Amino acid sequence: MKRIGRFTLLTENRPYIETFAAVAGKREHEGPLGHEFDYCYDDTTLGEDSWEKSESRLQTEAVQRALQKGGLANEDIHYIFAGDLLNQCISSTFGLRSLQIPFLGQFGACSTMCQTLAMATVFVESGAADRALAVTSSHFCSAERQFRFPLEYGGQRPPTSQWTVTASGAAVVSQWGNTTKLSTAPVETVENYPVISAVTVGRIADLGVKDANNMGAAMAPAAAQTLVDFFSDTKTVPTDYDLILTGDLGQVGTKLLGELLEPYDICLGNLHQDCGNLIFDPKKQDVHAGGSGCGCAASVFCSKILREIQQGVYRNVLFMATGALMSPTSSQQGESIPSIAHLIHVTAQH
Amino acid sequence: MKRIGRFTLLTENRPYIETFAAVAGKREHEGPLGHEFDYCYDDTTLGEDSWEKSESRLQTEAVQRALQKGGLANEDIHYIFAGDLLNQCISSTFGLRSLQIPFLGQFGACSTMCQTLAMATVFVESGAADRALAVTSSHFCSAERQFRFPLEYGGQRPPTSQWTVTASGAAVVSQWGNTTKLSTAPVETVENYPVISAVTVGRIADLGVKDANNMGAAMAPAAAQTLVDFFSDTKTVPTDYDLILTGDLGQVGTKLLGELLEPYDICLGNLHQDCGNLIFDPKKQDVHAGGSGCGCAASVFCSKILREIQQGVYRNVLFMATGALMSPTSSQQGESIPSIAHLIHVTAQH
Repeated sequence: MKRIGRFTLLTENRPYIETFAAVAGKREHEGPLGHEFDYCYDDTTLGEDSWEKSESRLQTEAVQRALQKGGLANEDIHYIFAGDLLNQCISSTFGLRSLQIPFLGQFGACSTMCQTLAMATVFVESGAADRALAVTSSHFCSAERQFRFPLEYGGQRPPTSQWTVTASGAAVVSQWGNTTKLSTAPVETVENYPVISAVTVGRIADLGVKDANNMGAAMAPAAAQTLVDFFSDTKTVPTDYDLILTGDLGQVGTKLLGELLEPYDICLGNLHQDCGNLIFDPKKQDVHAGGSGCGCAASVFCSKILREIQQGVYRNVLFMATGALMSPTSSQQGESIPSIAHLIHVTAQH
Repeated sequence: MKRIGRFTLLTENRPYIETFAAVAGKREHEGPLGHEFDYCYDDTTLGEDSWEKSESRLQTEAVQRALQKGGLANEDIHYIFAGDLLNQCISSTFGLRSLQIPFLGQFGACSTMCQTLAMATVFVESGAADRALAVTSSHFCSAERQFRFPLEYGGQRPPTSQWTVTASGAAVVSQWGNTTKLSTAPVETVENYPVISAVTVGRIADLGVKDANNMGAAMAPAAAQTLVDFFSDTKTVPTDYDLILTGDLGQVGTKLLGELLEPYDICLGNLHQDCGNLIFDPKKQDVHAGGSGCGCAASVFCSKILREIQQGVYRNVLFMATGALMSPTSSQQGESIPSIAHLIHVTAQH
């Protein structure tokens, strides 16, 4: 591992994503990526008797499917890094408690998929683990009642609000040399391994945004800061990459990110895509400013994106998820919304 | 870094605790360790207008004092690992947002001090960081109103309940060779450096305990499991160490831990101490089964214990903090309490 610049780590042992899976809910199934997920639940309860248990179940399922697709047993995983949006991260702790894998709970709000992948990368790169699993989730119904209103209340949603994605994504980061039977795509089409080449951990940013119905605006400053840090540390420019993927900035945050990067002469242009804009069809699905939640970035990255890296569609991807680090209590006390963005650089290696 | 057994990492580059600090509240000041803390606040509000802001302030203060004592600036710290008990870990995110240090939020409930130290150790040992800071906190008033009842309600507390400690502890883990001006004790008495020699990350344990007023009982199974894992991996026995320190099992959990270890022929005897039993005087202070909260283990370890390791009182310490990974919502839904325990082995090196 090599530190370059102030904030970036370059890996030297080519830790790679050996297997991955994503599961999602009904509305996600009906969206443009519905066919990309390993499994979709058309019953939003997943057969459980509370929304929190439904969300826990999403994580259990994503992890089990990722392990199964990779032909791995629980004991093949040395550490599991997991987190979610619910108070005390109960989707993760209850969803994963039976696995008997050493567990390190992470809290990065909607940045969690990048944070868990970054942690797994450092552990695998350093030899602390042969394999480490990264997973997160969100569920529309558990998030609504915890962060906003009970569903039964039927509150109006402003145009800047985003729709929490019901989904989970899981990925196993492995040391090069681990037996690899990539069954996530037919074997003949898997020509590339998604290698995590660099990690940039974000600093907390806070431009004073207080509107809890405008998460995109709260998170855009963190996204801009981490991108500027990464480009500066690596002395690269956006056109050195073929995809710059953010987690859930949505339409409002995406526009703002572009504006915040202008003073730095950084133009992402068409290279930028946002999982929150990809997962739903804004014309057909009434989701206002796009998708959000830990499960948004997780499910899009751990399905379509990783598969397309395997297939060689993308060879050089920046994946950066952003998180709003507030709680309903801090908002009620008039506080602004601190946010954070963590970034990983994924390259397709033959 | 070397993996031994199934769950334990041995360090090879002697990552050590370069500087540390602890701050605490009024009741902690009045307890037997009152003189050990760097600063105590006799105003429980810390001059803030909400309990959550008071708790955030504890973290800000502990970090600033640790940096100051070590003669370090913010930019000397490559990563900060922090977490707490509040929903969405707002004590950490708000308390540390102005530092501009790459931030990785951790959730391990009351195991957080060991979890953050374990993460900092892996990052420093692997060369991902020159220095990494570990910090956590708890506050009686913010915890009571979030997890139990508003203070004004004056709810009765059962004898098994513990008293959440108002405190924060912070420690900087550094690569050997960093400039060391240990000012935590007069220079002439600092003869030893606390080196983190091993880390054992816990698995989630759940024996079905459902009583949210008996955290000691819920966490003891995780403590027993991690100790058994560590002794088995390292082929050592309790008498190889001169202190086995747990975080906040309190009186009930301490007794139960002894019983759970009996079938493994492991007897901790007088080697075992618990921060929850040390921080208050059970005869003079009405705290029922002892102290608890992330800040309990953090403030005891980052004051008296680390100082005594520097002074050579202890040369070989196992420090293990335990966490109950539930939320009020999971308890209201009738769920049992999953728990976890992470362990670090600290040796005094000349």
